[in-house]
Order: sequence, then structure tokens, then C-alpha cells
Amino acid sequence: MNTPLILITNDDGYAAAGIQALARTVAHLGDVYVVAPDGPRSGAAASITCTAPVSYKQLTSQPDYSANIHLYACSGTPVDCVKLAWDNILPRRPDLILSGINHGDNASISVHYSGTMGAVFEGCMKGIPSIGFSLYLQRGQRYEDHPVCDAALAAISKLCKQIIENGLPQDVCLNVNFPVANSFRGFQLCRQARGRWTAEWASATNPHGLHSYWLTGQFQDLEPDATDTDFSALRAGYTSIVPITIDMTAHGCFDDLRLIIDQ
Amino acid sequence: MNTPLILITNDDGYAAAGIQALARTVAHLGDVYVVAPDGPRSGAAASITCTAPVSYKQLTSQPDYSANIHLYACSGTPVDCVKLAWDNILPRRPDLILSGINHGDNASISVHYSGTMGAVFEGCMKGIPSIGFSLYLQRGQRYEDHPVCDAALAAISKLCKQIIENGLPQDVCLNVNFPVANSFRGFQLCRQARGRWTAEWASATNPHGLHSYWLTGQFQDLEPDATDTDFSALRAGYTSIVPITIDMTAHGCFDDLRLIIDQ
Repeated sequence: MNTPLILITNDDGYAAAGIQALARTVAHLGDVYVVAPDGPRSGAAASITCTAPVSYKQLTSQPDYSANIHLYACSGTPVDCVKLAWDNILPRRPDLILSGINHGDNASISVHYSGTMGAVFEGCMKGIPSIGFSLYLQRGQRYEDHPVCDAALAAISKLCKQIIENGLPQDVCLNVNFPVANSFRGFQLCRQARGRWTAEWASATNPHGLHSYWLTGQFQDLEPDATDTDFSALRAGYTSIVPITIDMTAHGCFDDLRLIIDQ
Repeated sequence: MNTPLILITNDDGYAAAGIQALARTVAHLGDVYVVAPDGPRSGAAASITCTAPVSYKQLTSQPDYSANIHLYACSGTPVDCVKLAWDNILPRRPDLILSGINHGDNASISVHYSGTMGAVFEGCMKGIPSIGFSLYLQRGQRYEDHPVCDAALAAISKLCKQIIENGLPQDVCLNVNFPVANSFRGFQLCRQARGRWTAEWASATNPHGLHSYWLTGQFQDLEPDATDTDFSALRAGYTSIVPITIDMTAHGCFDDLRLIIDQ
């Protein structure tokens, strides 16, 4: 068997603390290619760059990266990074695609807005076991001040080794969210919580008098009493793993829909 | 009951032929607010604008819009449009959120990249019945030369009336794709086809010598013999309706994962 090849991207940019921690953590498992945006792409979801060309360049690696970590910066979105790496950068088919560690959680419906998870969907579409890692920071907390602890990094390493060896079910990828903690309490396999963002805009006026709006908002967990969701796991100090399917079909509702839609 | 309120957005921009056709088609069902991007946002997925403020303005309506169609252009993504309309523009809670008609299909895995469908997910997250409409153009075909035919527009009108009256199941929205045709053969309720994009980059050098890449690609239907997918419906000349769930949990694979992941 070839040395495993691991592709890593994120939506905070190649220089973010989280992706550097992730690259260092899994470097002992194989050859690592970090192909990440050249700056922040938070909220990029699974967006792709259709209306402009995209470019990339190889960078001198970070000082604390080992020799088997190759570093590239890309002008596009996280999904563009995976697509560019796939067609133009990687020397062979990757064995694992990772994204993160995101500075902020991607639990519940935030999975839809997440550039971190957009890249993971893309890896899954290409048939590669793919995992997104995110850290649930409270508002005002910075990753640099509350990094994922060493025990949790060791759990990432072990999980990645298991997935390289065992794979994942077809069309399924993983959304992993860590709580801020000094120790690692364990993983919980769980489902995506039902939730909703409210009061999403802060009004602002720029120096030229243009009225505009900054996206903000309050997250509302619609299942605060549940014990099997990603948010319930995080509340209890556990690390959530939600298996995510890229088949978005609502398979269970065909009969209901036939009553609603007169075909 | 109040007059139904219908919010419409898209990812081709407010001036696109598809959204104008959609607004005119449903204007007889209620009050229509078109809140759409000020230019193309193809491939925007469910992305949100986090790193810059967003603005919008009310426009003089299109010449062939009726008095109950209110028109706004927004500097953000399709999801931003829905969020801005919700908090800042609409006079009351909408009864229906529509997106499209997209110039190009959003069948199979393209649902993940689609700005059209990103806006539909957002409507669904807000608890409003939401539908995305797209037209399956072949490469090189333009919407203006192959518009959705009058019979298909009448089917949109009828479907929207049914959904306003009956609603949709919780956390479920609809992804509707039309074939190019001079007549309307009917809807088929179907599932998302398994598919894959390959050969996705066209190499280019700009006038300043910078090497870059344009996103392109070939779509590969991984289930060419299926008879129950969106692509099989389109191939047969039918209009596909895929019920889409915003719960991306792979509910069926927890037991398999417990064998793969040693918790």
C-alpha cells in the first residue's frame, strides 16, 4: 500500500491556527497536502467560483510543519480548493480529505452555511472519506486563546487512522464539533439538531452615508431537551460526530407529497 | 386570510429572464416581493456574506410587472436576500418562498452548489414552504432562446397554489427541474440522482502572465439506467420534483459507523 495521502483544506485560510494544528496532528499518518484559501472564506458553504478564474501557488511551508506537509494557497472557495487539488496538485488519489479545524462550530443547520463542510461534501462527492472538524467557540472567544486541547488532537489522529483503514459508507461524510475544554470526554454519534437563526442583521452606515447591514444573529436550538443531537452532545461536554449524507432527498415524504401535489 | 405573500429570489440576478417569468407567473396568487442579487451569483450555494456588509435598494419595477410586484436588488448572496427580506423588507411573514427560474439545471449533486437552492434551504429553515425552479439547458443554450414554455409556467402556478394551500412537510422543500420543451409532459416525484463532475478546470493565462483556471467540467450520471431519479425524469421529458430535507443526518448508517469508529 502506498503511503496514505491526506488533503486538508478549511474556510479560515491556510494561515489559520486551526488548520495548522490539524496538519501537524495527522502528519504522522501519511503525506499531507494543505490546499486552502488565501484568506478567510467563512460562510462560503459549498459555493464554487463560476464568474472568474481561480489561481493557486505553492508556499514555503510553515516553520513548524514537517517535510511531508506540502502547502498551497488558492484564490477560490474551499470547494474550489478540493477541485483544484484533485485535478492539478495532488500526485495521486487522496485516501482522506479533512477540513478545519474551523474557528467556530458548524453544528445543527450551520452545516449548510459552512465553508468547512462544503469542502467535506465535495470530498464525499468524489468518493473519498471526508471529515470536517470545528470548535464551538462562544461569541468573543478566539481559537488562539481556546485551542483544541492535546487530548482532543490525539482523538482526531486516532479517528483519522480508523477512517483511512475502514472507510466510510457510500455518500456519507462526518461533521465533528468539539467543545472548548481542557480534556477530551469522548465522541458521541448524533444527529443534526433542529435550529434557527434569528435577529440576523446589525444595521450600519458607512463613512459615505451608505446604509448597510452586517450579518450577525442569535442561534436558537429548537430541541433544547433532546439528548441525541450535536448540540446536546456539546452541551454535555462531548465531541459530536454527525454522519452527513450528500443525498438530500427526503425519502420518507413521498406519500405525503402525493397528497399535496396533484400531478 | 390575508392576501398570500410570496418572496422570490434567484442566483442569476433580479434582471434575469427566468426570475421575471416566475414573478409574472405567480403574481395573480398574491403580493409578490422580488428580492434578488444585483448581478449573477451562480454557484453561490447556501453561502452568506460574513466578512463585509450587505446593502439593498428598491428599484422601479420592470415595465411588464403588475402593481403588486415589488422589486429589490441586494449586494449579497441568494441566502442573504432571503435573510434581508425576512428581517428588513417584507411587511409580514411570507406564505411561500420561490427561487429561480434558474438558467441551468440544479439536478443531482448540483443541488449542493446551487445558489438557487441555497435560498430555498434558507426559506425551509425559516419554516416557510419553499420551492426552487430550474431549467435544464444544454451547454451553449441560453434561457432567452429556450424559455420555460407557457404550459410549464401554468404548471408552476398550479403547484404554487397547491403548496400555499397545503404547505409542505416539516424541514422539506422542493427542487423542481424543467426540461427544454415546447409542451409540459407532467411532474415526476423522484430522488436525487447519484452523480459526479469530472475534468473540472480549463487552464488559462491572463494578459499579465498569471496562470489561472476556469471552472467547467463534465457531469457524469452514475445511475444512467435508473428510472426514479431527477435525471431519468428529465431524460424522459418530464419535470422532476425532488423533495429535499434540510436535515442532512445520514440516519441509516449509525450502526455501520459504530463498527468503524471505536468510541
